[in-house]
Amino acid sequence: MLTLRPAVPVDVPVILALIRALATYEKEPHKVVATEASLLRDGFGDRPLFQVTMAEVEGHPVGFAFWFLTYSTWRGQATLFLEDLFVIPEARGTGVGKALMQFLARTALQQGCGRLMWNVLDWNQPSIDFYQSLGAQVLREWLTVRLDGEALQRLAGKG
Amino acid sequence: MLTLRPAVPVDVPVILALIRALATYEKEPHKVVATEASLLRDGFGDRPLFQVTMAEVEGHPVGFAFWFLTYSTWRGQATLFLEDLFVIPEARGTGVGKALMQFLARTALQQGCGRLMWNVLDWNQPSIDFYQSLGAQVLREWLTVRLDGEALQRLAGKG
Repeated sequence: MLTLRPAVPVDVPVILALIRALATYEKEPHKVVATEASLLRDGFGDRPLFQVTMAEVEGHPVGFAFWFLTYSTWRGQATLFLEDLFVIPEARGTGVGKALMQFLARTALQQGCGRLMWNVLDWNQPSIDFYQSLGAQVLREWLTVRLDGEALQRLAGKG
Repeated sequence: MLTLRPAVPVDVPVILALIRALATYEKEPHKVVATEASLLRDGFGDRPLFQVTMAEVEGHPVGFAFWFLTYSTWRGQATLFLEDLFVIPEARGTGVGKALMQFLARTALQQGCGRLMWNVLDWNQPSIDFYQSLGAQVLREWLTVRLDGEALQRLAGKG
């Protein structure tokens, strides 16, 4: 039977393994530099920067949702932002992803959020189809911009 | 002379006016349902959901940056996410936008963030050019997905 529960510190090694599995699915496994120490520090201290919801079947992890609150200036209301959603290959097609999305929708409403938002890769049609089946809209005119590495140091005047 | 400072509660009417001005520039003025009360509640209480940096010339507001921290699972590190950046038309081309971006880059590094991220509309070429001149990358393969309104209620089982 599927159960969902909030992650606790002892889950961190499994969370990191799921983050790596998702990055591999997204064809960028080498991009994961997160460590168990960084996830413990940032997610399980006094001011957690994120929340993790674990999905388990008979106590075995089958997936997770990694999320936090952002903010919509237009709505004047928090947004629940889903950073990572992953279901292990063996458990796909059994409703785990939908159960996680339903949980997030309920959590969003409970926390006073007006929206769920997330990103998806443009070639990931199975996920796009799944999200659209839930009523989500792909906002194709909004592009994502990133500044990091040497460009960030340089802009800060430290390059 | 340009000065940057953190917003305080008395700035909320100006912040809301700048949010509306940006929404008008983005051709969606009717989408702003935020109120002074919602911004006061969410940004200036015990657990602020966002930060606002005001840009002023001789004490008059000329722009703002509206931002918060998100999280990168790949980096295992916070990200400084820029929700809104706006400079009033009369002050454009005078370095206000760049000064705000430099401030955000320094703030990101001080707060242990590995990245600045934000969204831009695909037709907003002047902004895209400006961001690229700072060293930012447009990540065209990442699409933004949103679930709200009746679809959110339905997924939560309340529709």
